[in-house]
Amino acid sequence: MKKEKQLSVSEIATRLGCEFSGDGDKLITSVGGLRESVPGDISFLANPKYSTYAKSSLASALIVATDWDGETNAALIFSDSPDASFQQVAQWFTHAPAAIPKGIHSTAIIDETAEIGQHVSIGAYTVISAGVKVGDNSTILPNGFIGEGTHIGESALIYSNVTVREHIIIGDRVILHPGVVIGSDGFGYSVNKDGSRSKVPQMGTVALGNDVEVGSNSCIDRARFGVTRIGNGVKIDNLVQVAHNSVIGDHSVLVAQVGIAGSVVLGDYVVMGGQAAAAGHIVVGANTMVGGQAGITKDIKPNQHLWGTPAVDFNKFCENNSNVTRLPKLKKRIEELEARLAAVEKQ
Amino acid sequence: MKKEKQLSVSEIATRLGCEFSGDGDKLITSVGGLRESVPGDISFLANPKYSTYAKSSLASALIVATDWDGETNAALIFSDSPDASFQQVAQWFTHAPAAIPKGIHSTAIIDETAEIGQHVSIGAYTVISAGVKVGDNSTILPNGFIGEGTHIGESALIYSNVTVREHIIIGDRVILHPGVVIGSDGFGYSVNKDGSRSKVPQMGTVALGNDVEVGSNSCIDRARFGVTRIGNGVKIDNLVQVAHNSVIGDHSVLVAQVGIAGSVVLGDYVVMGGQAAAAGHIVVGANTMVGGQAGITKDIKPNQHLWGTPAVDFNKFCENNSNVTRLPKLKKRIEELEARLAAVEKQ
Amino acid sequence: MKKEKQLSVSEIATRLGCEFSGDGDKLITSVGGLRESVPGDISFLANPKYSTYAKSSLASALIVATDWDGETNAALIFSDSPDASFQQVAQWFTHAPAAIPKGIHSTAIIDETAEIGQHVSIGAYTVISAGVKVGDNSTILPNGFIGEGTHIGESALIYSNVTVREHIIIGDRVILHPGVVIGSDGFGYSVNKDGSRSKVPQMGTVALGNDVEVGSNSCIDRARFGVTRIGNGVKIDNLVQVAHNSVIGDHSVLVAQVGIAGSVVLGDYVVMGGQAAAAGHIVVGANTMVGGQAGITKDIKPNQHLWGTPAVDFNKFCENNSNVTRLPKLKKRIEELEARLAAVEKQ
Repeated sequence: MKKEKQLSVSEIATRLGCEFSGDGDKLITSVGGLRESVPGDISFLANPKYSTYAKSSLASALIVATDWDGETNAALIFSDSPDASFQQVAQWFTHAPAAIPKGIHSTAIIDETAEIGQHVSIGAYTVISAGVKVGDNSTILPNGFIGEGTHIGESALIYSNVTVREHIIIGDRVILHPGVVIGSDGFGYSVNKDGSRSKVPQMGTVALGNDVEVGSNSCIDRARFGVTRIGNGVKIDNLVQVAHNSVIGDHSVLVAQVGIAGSVVLGDYVVMGGQAAAAGHIVVGANTMVGGQAGITKDIKPNQHLWGTPAVDFNKFCENNSNVTRLPKLKKRIEELEARLAAVEKQ
Repeated sequence: MKKEKQLSVSEIATRLGCEFSGDGDKLITSVGGLRESVPGDISFLANPKYSTYAKSSLASALIVATDWDGETNAALIFSDSPDASFQQVAQWFTHAPAAIPKGIHSTAIIDETAEIGQHVSIGAYTVISAGVKVGDNSTILPNGFIGEGTHIGESALIYSNVTVREHIIIGDRVILHPGVVIGSDGFGYSVNKDGSRSKVPQMGTVALGNDVEVGSNSCIDRARFGVTRIGNGVKIDNLVQVAHNSVIGDHSVLVAQVGIAGSVVLGDYVVMGGQAAAAGHIVVGANTMVGGQAGITKDIKPNQHLWGTPAVDFNKFCENNSNVTRLPKLKKRIEELEARLAAVEKQ
Repeated sequence: MKKEKQLSVSEIATRLGCEFSGDGDKLITSVGGLRESVPGDISFLANPKYSTYAKSSLASALIVATDWDGETNAALIFSDSPDASFQQVAQWFTHAPAAIPKGIHSTAIIDETAEIGQHVSIGAYTVISAGVKVGDNSTILPNGFIGEGTHIGESALIYSNVTVREHIIIGDRVILHPGVVIGSDGFGYSVNKDGSRSKVPQMGTVALGNDVEVGSNSCIDRARFGVTRIGNGVKIDNLVQVAHNSVIGDHSVLVAQVGIAGSVVLGDYVVMGGQAAAAGHIVVGANTMVGGQAGITKDIKPNQHLWGTPAVDFNKFCENNSNVTRLPKLKKRIEELEARLAAVEKQ
């Protein structure tokens, strides 16, 4: 389906089979969230608690519930399910997915010992080293580098400019976004008597489970020995660092710019907010949630919710923060006590 | 102009038409800031408040105001405008800018449906996909990848190893530094009953305004629907993350390693210090300044100055910090009160 | 030596010349740390203080001291030096290092004015610009870009997808991991009357000393004028930012995601923990240690240990934190004082 360049409010309402109010001739050229929209966008209001944003929204049209009667400057389209209707409209304004060239580009350099599966696409100027295996239906886009002996599963999608170094295991349906680096050396040194550092060989590897996604320019280091292990279904956002020998439990989530130090073990279903970090050699229990920018410095039991550096219980962190904010009041109470006590003492 | 390998202090003074004192035969090989200089550097002192640094500076020569009489080990060159004189000298020690090869390299792969403007340079091994448009006088350096249907404006400069995915809009005079990724998938998942996650299609795109600069290895994700929008004149430093559907207002500045979560709206002229972050779905008013490493967690009015996580007014943050530092004193006053009160109670 | 796919516990014990207890037929397929291991791994216990982890370890076998008698489910191999024995075993399960193709790949594009030393390897699709020098025994892997006039020392190792821009100096034995960017423009602008920004030319360069290592996707910006200088033996982890004109002293260590702002001077042997940052134009004394996520905002004397943002003495930071946690107790003491004083006042 071809992306629409523009549709009028009335055309959209007709396609959806909905009523509308306001200027039906207004031209809509894109979709957007209620608060991020600019003129020309259509947006939607599914949750009544955001009604106040409808008033300040710059969107030219809003899809709202049939009984909504809030204030807004936008034209309105009334739907029994604003969310579902918006999803439909969003697709009309969406480009078809980019076509991935089929087959192996003539400029891809593939070592003769590599085993390439069925229906694999390999882009221009990508280099596949000796002993690499690529599973059926996998795609590697241009300018990539796959090191010696690395195994890539089936239906993997590796974007452009990715480096996967030697002897790495990549599961099925893994997605590596542009600029990702898998298997670079762990950051390990011994300190010499003169304070200089000597490199400790990083002889291990990295294993990514099935259904893992790794965001743009994120880095996962190979183990000093053994394996840096990313569990099944783990989702890693952009610019995340996972250091050597760490283990990320199944279905855990690392939001952008998270840093996991060496030999950390995250349980399953752990969620770390943006820019959060875990110090080396700690174990974080399953289902734990870590707030953005928090820094975990010690072992954590399962099912915790943490914030702050060093990270503590989320509610305790908030309470501490409130208490600090109220320190001037506390000081005032002490001053009053001092004055009153002095008065008593004088009697 | 060819870069000078070395000039003596007296040669520099003569070229500037300035007097000098100290060893005129000292050889200068580079320029540097007052505090970062090493022997062989020439530096300058424009602001008298930094006079104390002149004493400890390792620079071999300093350009100072004609009436400056502070202490230093450096040879001195006296100028009516030390800043301007230093800029002159700095240019003598500067390489000519690297020559950008003209035209389209024979190894660049350009889809036959791409529209390439006048005076465009495209480097070796760069891949330009179907339907791409590149405006006049734009340059794309080696090993890049431009996805299907992406439009690049005029006089853009895209360094090596950059990925711009499909259907992205890049304005005029935009600079993308090496390793930048524009338009990778937003980080969006729905959570299944068993706690695993399913990918939510990221069907939108990214639009960069005119005069935008994006630093090395920074990432800007495409929208879930609609557009992740970077305003005109926005300057983004290295290793910055901008998540899906966010809007960065015109002329805003994101210093290195900043993280902007999804659906954030930054007003115009917002400045976020290094490693600062904004949580998802918040609106930050125009002209707001955010201190380094701060974390904004809620809507912010215009013209604020914030620090801390969760970010509060800058002065309030500093006051809180001071109050915490003084807690031992507060505790002591309480102990004294307890002792005095106990004495009173005994009477 | 070829990597072992599996060895039984008894085979491992025999090879090591050690006794074992437990199931000698258990098959070992990899090595791992005590806490990160999964079934099939062999691990070790060198330090008795970690004995409790032996009980919960999932490792199939443990190498322990001959007199160890703690609890565990693993088979045990008894060694006079568990650490050394483990290192031996780790090597049996290690792939031979990836073979680096010798010589210059036919697709590497090397400007005719470049000077390439003896025994240099240059990978496929790498571009070497005019006037570049590469020292003997250095290696540059595929898809790299080396800018005009850059000099690379001897025995350097530059991984795939690296960009080194023009006129950069790289010392001997330097390692640049995949995706590194050296010499991109510093982040410098002048602010115009209308609030927009104009780019300040970044005319300087970058110099890396000998034995420097730079982690994946890290960025080191060129100076505005003069040189951004990385000392000898400096070790930089992944995703680190070093801004223009900064100086990193010899043998300093920047852990992952550290951010060094512009014109910062770090002394020798400084260690900055993960995600720590230094604000612009400050000087940090030698041997200073900075805790993870800390933010240094002012000049620091040598030999300090710091934490927090703004960073203070490590112990002071911990004390402040404890004091904040105890604020509810302090408040309670004030309430008691108020009640007791009220009682006294009534008398």
